[in-house]
Amino acid sequence: MKTLTKETRVHRLPMSGPNDTAALAEKITEGFIVPAGIVAILGKTEGNGCVNDFTRGYAVQSLKTSLSQYLSQQALSNICFIMSGGTEGALTPHWIVIETVNIEATPSAEKALAVGHSITRDFLPNEIGTNVQLDIVAEGVRAAMAEADINDTNDVHFVQIKCPLITSERVRKAGGASEVATTDTLKSMGLSRGASALGVASALGEISDHFLSNAKIGTDTDLFSSRASCSAGVELMGCEIVVLGMSEMWSGPLAIEHTVMMDAIDMSSVLRLTDRALGHSQGQLREDQSQRVKAVLTKAEAAKSGFVRGQRHTMLNDSDVSSTRHARGFVGGLLGGIFGDTALFVSGGAEHQGPDGGGPCALIYEKE
Amino acid sequence: MKTLTKETRVHRLPMSGPNDTAALAEKITEGFIVPAGIVAILGKTEGNGCVNDFTRGYAVQSLKTSLSQYLSQQALSNICFIMSGGTEGALTPHWIVIETVNIEATPSAEKALAVGHSITRDFLPNEIGTNVQLDIVAEGVRAAMAEADINDTNDVHFVQIKCPLITSERVRKAGGASEVATTDTLKSMGLSRGASALGVASALGEISDHFLSNAKIGTDTDLFSSRASCSAGVELMGCEIVVLGMSEMWSGPLAIEHTVMMDAIDMSSVLRLTDRALGHSQGQLREDQSQRVKAVLTKAEAAKSGFVRGQRHTMLNDSDVSSTRHARGFVGGLLGGIFGDTALFVSGGAEHQGPDGGGPCALIYEKE
Amino acid sequence: MKTLTKETRVHRLPMSGPNDTAALAEKITEGFIVPAGIVAILGKTEGNGCVNDFTRGYAVQSLKTSLSQYLSQQALSNICFIMSGGTEGALTPHWIVIETVNIEATPSAEKALAVGHSITRDFLPNEIGTNVQLDIVAEGVRAAMAEADINDTNDVHFVQIKCPLITSERVRKAGGASEVATTDTLKSMGLSRGASALGVASALGEISDHFLSNAKIGTDTDLFSSRASCSAGVELMGCEIVVLGMSEMWSGPLAIEHTVMMDAIDMSSVLRLTDRALGHSQGQLREDQSQRVKAVLTKAEAAKSGFVRGQRHTMLNDSDVSSTRHARGFVGGLLGGIFGDTALFVSGGAEHQGPDGGGPCALIYEKE
Amino acid sequence: MKTLTKETRVHRLPMSGPNDTAALAEKITEGFIVPAGIVAILGKTEGNGCVNDFTRGYAVQSLKTSLSQYLSQQALSNICFIMSGGTEGALTPHWIVIETVNIEATPSAEKALAVGHSITRDFLPNEIGTNVQLDIVAEGVRAAMAEADINDTNDVHFVQIKCPLITSERVRKAGGASEVATTDTLKSMGLSRGASALGVASALGEISDHFLSNAKIGTDTDLFSSRASCSAGVELMGCEIVVLGMSEMWSGPLAIEHTVMMDAIDMSSVLRLTDRALGHSQGQLREDQSQRVKAVLTKAEAAKSGFVRGQRHTMLNDSDVSSTRHARGFVGGLLGGIFGDTALFVSGGAEHQGPDGGGPCALIYEKE
Repeated sequence: MKTLTKETRVHRLPMSGPNDTAALAEKITEGFIVPAGIVAILGKTEGNGCVNDFTRGYAVQSLKTSLSQYLSQQALSNICFIMSGGTEGALTPHWIVIETVNIEATPSAEKALAVGHSITRDFLPNEIGTNVQLDIVAEGVRAAMAEADINDTNDVHFVQIKCPLITSERVRKAGGASEVATTDTLKSMGLSRGASALGVASALGEISDHFLSNAKIGTDTDLFSSRASCSAGVELMGCEIVVLGMSEMWSGPLAIEHTVMMDAIDMSSVLRLTDRALGHSQGQLREDQSQRVKAVLTKAEAAKSGFVRGQRHTMLNDSDVSSTRHARGFVGGLLGGIFGDTALFVSGGAEHQGPDGGGPCALIYEKE
Repeated sequence: MKTLTKETRVHRLPMSGPNDTAALAEKITEGFIVPAGIVAILGKTEGNGCVNDFTRGYAVQSLKTSLSQYLSQQALSNICFIMSGGTEGALTPHWIVIETVNIEATPSAEKALAVGHSITRDFLPNEIGTNVQLDIVAEGVRAAMAEADINDTNDVHFVQIKCPLITSERVRKAGGASEVATTDTLKSMGLSRGASALGVASALGEISDHFLSNAKIGTDTDLFSSRASCSAGVELMGCEIVVLGMSEMWSGPLAIEHTVMMDAIDMSSVLRLTDRALGHSQGQLREDQSQRVKAVLTKAEAAKSGFVRGQRHTMLNDSDVSSTRHARGFVGGLLGGIFGDTALFVSGGAEHQGPDGGGPCALIYEKE
Repeated sequence: MKTLTKETRVHRLPMSGPNDTAALAEKITEGFIVPAGIVAILGKTEGNGCVNDFTRGYAVQSLKTSLSQYLSQQALSNICFIMSGGTEGALTPHWIVIETVNIEATPSAEKALAVGHSITRDFLPNEIGTNVQLDIVAEGVRAAMAEADINDTNDVHFVQIKCPLITSERVRKAGGASEVATTDTLKSMGLSRGASALGVASALGEISDHFLSNAKIGTDTDLFSSRASCSAGVELMGCEIVVLGMSEMWSGPLAIEHTVMMDAIDMSSVLRLTDRALGHSQGQLREDQSQRVKAVLTKAEAAKSGFVRGQRHTMLNDSDVSSTRHARGFVGGLLGGIFGDTALFVSGGAEHQGPDGGGPCALIYEKE
Repeated sequence: MKTLTKETRVHRLPMSGPNDTAALAEKITEGFIVPAGIVAILGKTEGNGCVNDFTRGYAVQSLKTSLSQYLSQQALSNICFIMSGGTEGALTPHWIVIETVNIEATPSAEKALAVGHSITRDFLPNEIGTNVQLDIVAEGVRAAMAEADINDTNDVHFVQIKCPLITSERVRKAGGASEVATTDTLKSMGLSRGASALGVASALGEISDHFLSNAKIGTDTDLFSSRASCSAGVELMGCEIVVLGMSEMWSGPLAIEHTVMMDAIDMSSVLRLTDRALGHSQGQLREDQSQRVKAVLTKAEAAKSGFVRGQRHTMLNDSDVSSTRHARGFVGGLLGGIFGDTALFVSGGAEHQGPDGGGPCALIYEKE
């Protein structure tokens, strides 16, 4: 006997530029994607991923324009558009469309990929990068878990967040330097990502709230979430939160697993992840395994220590190229080697997202 | 019964900056390196690896100053100083000192790591990137092979070359734009590397001279050497050539193997290389294997096609960061994952060095 | 007795980012700008002005979205949207809205600012940077002159053109490297600007067509227009052309003058221009003079010779920052000093626009 | 009747790269410069002027190597080598050699250019950017004034300082992030320059010590010296201080004047300076005036407010190019227009050196 359940579908689509939504339009026209079911669209766009990366806003504007022929403004405002700039090295710009469909399925004890989302209120400039942001994000994560029918925090495998940053103009609006966490726009991106990540850690019980305070944000690298992935962008003032996990209330062929890369060359953790998910623990995925991969979501960053396994890196001393760009390209190469694929969602700036110099890595895949 | 033979020793040493030769000085003081035996010093320095990368010249000046207390100017001028700029991602700046020592050894049929070198005459600006450079390099490779006692071209596993580039001032000296292969300094680096690589291919019999002409340099990506690695730099006007291979005339514990990465994510070829050399074909090297690695030498570049396995990359459209920087960091990440190490000599700009978007990769290691 | 004539109005408006069209919307709401009268909108946006500058496309998309509530798609497609990326140094991102209004005016012999525009057909990738583009642009300039009621080419003071560039993908579509003028995207921007500028020179009779050929484009710097200003961008495949000049058929308080900067430090030419227009020949404009300035439009570039008045510059050897970015910031500083203002439309890449290292400079101002 | 007095000579010399000391060697060979009289060598080198700018260290190493054939190590260590990276826009890399010679001259009441210098002790990493540095610099300035026979602080027109910065490695040596003023290397350059500048302000009585405290360094932009110019570099741990002013104890044809640019487009202040020094107050210097200019020394920076005269600039939001690079190029253009010359010593990062967004500007010139 079949009952009505929900299924999460994940579509990885190409883009020829931040404004290229043709692949999405085609999938909709062909009936493979139903606009009303779209929960979130992640985009790996080809900007610098830093303060003046307008590819993110451009991509969101393009998506909204494209979808506005199917959806009301109200419906559009309920979709999470999470753009992460930076396709360094051979990484490929791409969209990841996450869709929920209602289907009739035979009930089974097996868990399936579930998704939930929430959008917080806009922050004031002086709240960005502080405990206020942290607490509101934690609340948002719990709301998204509820939407995804996930009760056990262990069933949450990835929380993708888009969060705001501080610009010169926002400092001015806030009333000057003394009112905000930092006046350095690039640094504000780190604090905003960090506060968001600790919000996830709090909601998932990874860290007791007892240990969380303003003073820890951006400084105490021992505190981290192993499932948070946060991107900052100039184009919004609140946080958009997408929770991905496993739930027995959902059905369908997809699943999600995650690991934590302990440093920038931690291939072993990634191979353990592919082993759990795909039964693959060595070398590059075979083509049949590769086809089961629906999305790879990873965080990367330059170790603040200045060293990887005792050897010096130069990312933090490079005044020509941001360390976040270096880190994305490098970790992208490692993952590209394993997955045999370059359409990987590698996001930079992993403050409180995994240990110093490392980061969470999640894999959405088709069950066998 | 022992006879006098030659042995190649390879020392991988840290540097805290392009002028830090302290580790070399220490090794000399402690007797581990004899200055008179130094054939070549390779340096992976932390500049941008492009036209205005002065870390290469600074490193060479620092090495010469440091060694001048042990060696005459004449002896110094006979050492190949091959600096390659660019330690993108988590790559670690380091020196690779290649030394020849005369030792008494029991004759054996087993081949061992052999090294030979040569330094060509200075080129005129209008010869850079042309057949003239190609032919003179081919001659230089043959001279270096003779020095290394290598007769069979199959025993050559890596040819490292440092070559010149064209600057605005050199264009002027040459008598204007119409006299030189290109007036674009960055592009001239590619033509110079390409002409050098085809010189290697010619000397090693990889390509019949019949197919080589000015018109092919920099354009016909189907023509390539699988063992050439060329770096261009502003600090010299000729080529410095180091041939690394195996010879039964040499003894010692070291050996060299090579492979060709067919594209930027070709992990499989690298694992076949580690398998041949270290008996390791999956995941990251174990520590005992890692300790047998003496040097990793690789070329990386952005595929001119704009695609890797059918997926778009953005390296060639990025006007903020040179594609050579992107490629080094990305391939560095893949290799870092396998070797569990970041002191890798990944050099950018692989014109005619491996196929479009790929590049040769060599491994110097201790035999079991 | 009054008759119906045309008047050109020019509005310089601030933007807080490429998507900020609020100032335009406000002017329309307040009745200061009538959407139907808009002929062209120029935008100085804050991207890198090179290949991957998406601020230009983002700005155009934002303008079109904003204006679509007032204008049909047909009407919109007839407006020239000419975005030029790059606000290096203290330059200020801004819009310049050029509007034509029909007014009743007393006929007078005095000429006034006149504007005309035209949009060419899309080019094939293999036409970009060639004589085909040159000829079609020349035709477009003549069409725009006719619209502006300008018969005497001496009355044309500035021709602003937006032209296309070649990307990896367009090379592929064209059938490979041998089919296009260059496969180097950055270089293609220069060839496209150069072909457009020579098209202007042809139309204005500055150079006899006899001297124009494919071989001259991008190479013979002695051939130039003193009134062309061309920007290349990824967001279009044809050319958008705006002619600004003086016509006795037009009325109103505005006028335009131009000069040519002979090199990057040619302040004297600019002061001669302000003298002719504003009676100001020394130091910085007084506030009353400054208020009469409606727009400053200039081209800047790095001298290919590598020298300015015999002294070396490093712009062409800098692999971290494009020479076009260097040139815009530097010339912007010189102009900022004179005009006491930073909202200057300084556009980079002046191939065949003024002499090597120099560029045209036009001033739209209120007559006394 | 003549007596023995001192004269300051200033030689502006070209360089084709950071290691090109040929012009200096030639001047020495020809007898125009006596090595023993060299007090300081300033160099405007072509690096990025930020953390990983190795052109500074390379230039110093090259100068020392070149001068070591004339001077003992002891004598060399007493020369101030002050390299400032960054020749953005059309700025020209050059050396400024400052030499003291003893000459017989007829005593006169007229003051002449005087120079004095001092070198402080090395700082600990945790002293950089703090009051400790400030106080030691103030002491150093007083020592240099004494050497220059300047009693009246009004006679000091420029104090050029080279100061250290904090790197990842130095943070580690200091015992971690909590021990140093900042762990951000780029930011540490600003704090070090700021502490040095306030040290100058203290020594010159520009600001009462009462108002100076750690908390003000890098934050209170109302506190500034109108004569300090500070460059940070990785190549030293102490400060090198050169005081330039006017003294009746010195003789010779040279003099120095200074002004303060109040913002990035303050041409009027510069023209007042050229008026006082050369009787020139409008437009570009004539050639006879230009020949009397011996050196132009200026500081430039991006206004922290994000605005210049109410108009937005984008320098602080640009994650691809450091704001110091933007500011140098822009102000270089303004000065290039006035001086008709590009060999200008424009140095970036003007924390507490002039008002926010402005900076001191000094002119060494031949008296009429």
